[in-house]
Amino acid sequence: MPITVVGSVAYDSIETPAGRRERCLGGAATYFSLAASFFTSVRVIAVVGEDFGPEQEAVFAARHIDTRGIEHTAGKSFFWEGSYLENLNEAKTHNTELNVFAAFEPKIPAAYRDSDFLFLANIDPVLQRRVREVMPQVKLVAGDTMNYWIKDHRPALLEVLKGLDVLLINDAEVRMLSGDNNLVHAARAVRSMGPRTLVVKHGEYGATLFHETTPKGGSAERRTFRAPAMPLEEVVDPTGAGDSFAGGFFGYLAAQPELTPAAYRRAMFYGSVMGSFACERFGTERLQQLSRPEIDARFNVFRELTHLD
Amino acid sequence: MPITVVGSVAYDSIETPAGRRERCLGGAATYFSLAASFFTSVRVIAVVGEDFGPEQEAVFAARHIDTRGIEHTAGKSFFWEGSYLENLNEAKTHNTELNVFAAFEPKIPAAYRDSDFLFLANIDPVLQRRVREVMPQVKLVAGDTMNYWIKDHRPALLEVLKGLDVLLINDAEVRMLSGDNNLVHAARAVRSMGPRTLVVKHGEYGATLFHETTPKGGSAERRTFRAPAMPLEEVVDPTGAGDSFAGGFFGYLAAQPELTPAAYRRAMFYGSVMGSFACERFGTERLQQLSRPEIDARFNVFRELTHLD
Repeated sequence: MPITVVGSVAYDSIETPAGRRERCLGGAATYFSLAASFFTSVRVIAVVGEDFGPEQEAVFAARHIDTRGIEHTAGKSFFWEGSYLENLNEAKTHNTELNVFAAFEPKIPAAYRDSDFLFLANIDPVLQRRVREVMPQVKLVAGDTMNYWIKDHRPALLEVLKGLDVLLINDAEVRMLSGDNNLVHAARAVRSMGPRTLVVKHGEYGATLFHETTPKGGSAERRTFRAPAMPLEEVVDPTGAGDSFAGGFFGYLAAQPELTPAAYRRAMFYGSVMGSFACERFGTERLQQLSRPEIDARFNVFRELTHLD
Repeated sequence: MPITVVGSVAYDSIETPAGRRERCLGGAATYFSLAASFFTSVRVIAVVGEDFGPEQEAVFAARHIDTRGIEHTAGKSFFWEGSYLENLNEAKTHNTELNVFAAFEPKIPAAYRDSDFLFLANIDPVLQRRVREVMPQVKLVAGDTMNYWIKDHRPALLEVLKGLDVLLINDAEVRMLSGDNNLVHAARAVRSMGPRTLVVKHGEYGATLFHETTPKGGSAERRTFRAPAMPLEEVVDPTGAGDSFAGGFFGYLAAQPELTPAAYRRAMFYGSVMGSFACERFGTERLQQLSRPEIDARFNVFRELTHLD
């Protein structure tokens, strides 16, 4: 079933120990939709400037991603510059230019309104909430956020959390949001803020799912599940790995006939798989060249990496 | 089959967010042998001072651990004082007194000589090597080390590595020893120093096994396996978690009729299980009160935590 995603479509200048790239196509919504497009159809809501042309459009078209919700306006697209020279697990931001994003007012095309799945990528929680409110009928809403919003925009973020079914954030963020350093306590605190399901991403160590399911006729059961990340020979560029995880996770879920606990567990694996691919080349290069058989082959590698038998 | 372990039997004064304990029974060989004793018989080589009496002896006796190789000399036992107030993943050392350990000359009782399994816990590599040399007939030798020996005693440590089948070290140590920040490259470099099998411990994120097996009539196959750690409600005291991991891992292996890849994978899980128990109380308290059914129940929890079906 189709996913609508709202978030940034942007340009990134990136430096890692493997080299430097200027103005790659990037942004959370871009990575998310490329990753999710291998599982289900994806519709994007974003804003871009005059620097976004047919070449960028073609990246989405090649994966049959619906871009009717990408608004084109005067000015330049969102731009981010960062490096990972000392630590591949944490970006150092050198420059952020909001550009056309500063005045972004998400507009949801009529053709997107029947989406059953909604993903609120990491943007201003005020915008996340607005999109959530005009799509009240969706079956499952997931979202992401970052330290900046947790620290300086907490009241707006707390409003968004009330409307989320699934929150995906990283280790440091779940501790920051809850004010608790213990992962189990932090997860419980964040789940009490709204999202029934929490996915905590641990970078090169994988991710943990904190989940609750109610079997038919039974009472609620708490479930924890840990998916590994794959030890990689070479991490060329970790930019977008978290958004690609989200795309694999949510894309897989959206393609399932039923949202069972087993579906969530497999979704965690597909999230890890897509995150691992994203790191193998600069920007979106690897996701653009990927095929579904490669994805399923790596899924099996992840299974062998963690399963006893 | 019996394991002989050489390492420290000591007293620890520990401060964590859960409280403070003065002069608990501790030391790498203590944690290792308590953990391993749930799987196989264990024989300890160590040295203690006059402060080690019947009460401490009883802790080993209760687990049927052979202490004939623990030498009693004049003076005080090894003493360590540390805290984990800011970071439960890393001890801050306040004081280390070698005491009787300064002049330790390991003596191997005749009754230990038929051990098929040898564990060289984290002590001076010169001593590790000496014990290794007088037990050349063992079937499998594993060892541990720490940043101090890697940094300041590298030549002696490199000699020990040549005689090891399995090395267990933590994340920061494998990177320090290899001089490479990428885990896959670091593991390859360290395995070229001697140990065919490498276990890298990631604290609360579990551990990775880098392994090579040669099936009958086939060629060598590289294998990577990742065991999780369990997200714990409360980490009371992480002291000894790594040594308990080693005890569970090596104890389980020593009890197997054959060292198959499947045995190594299950050993990784038992290592994680024993490490998780060690953290639940101060010092060796939890290991002393443990039962095999509790261990197997937690093994199943670890399986549910990571397995798709």
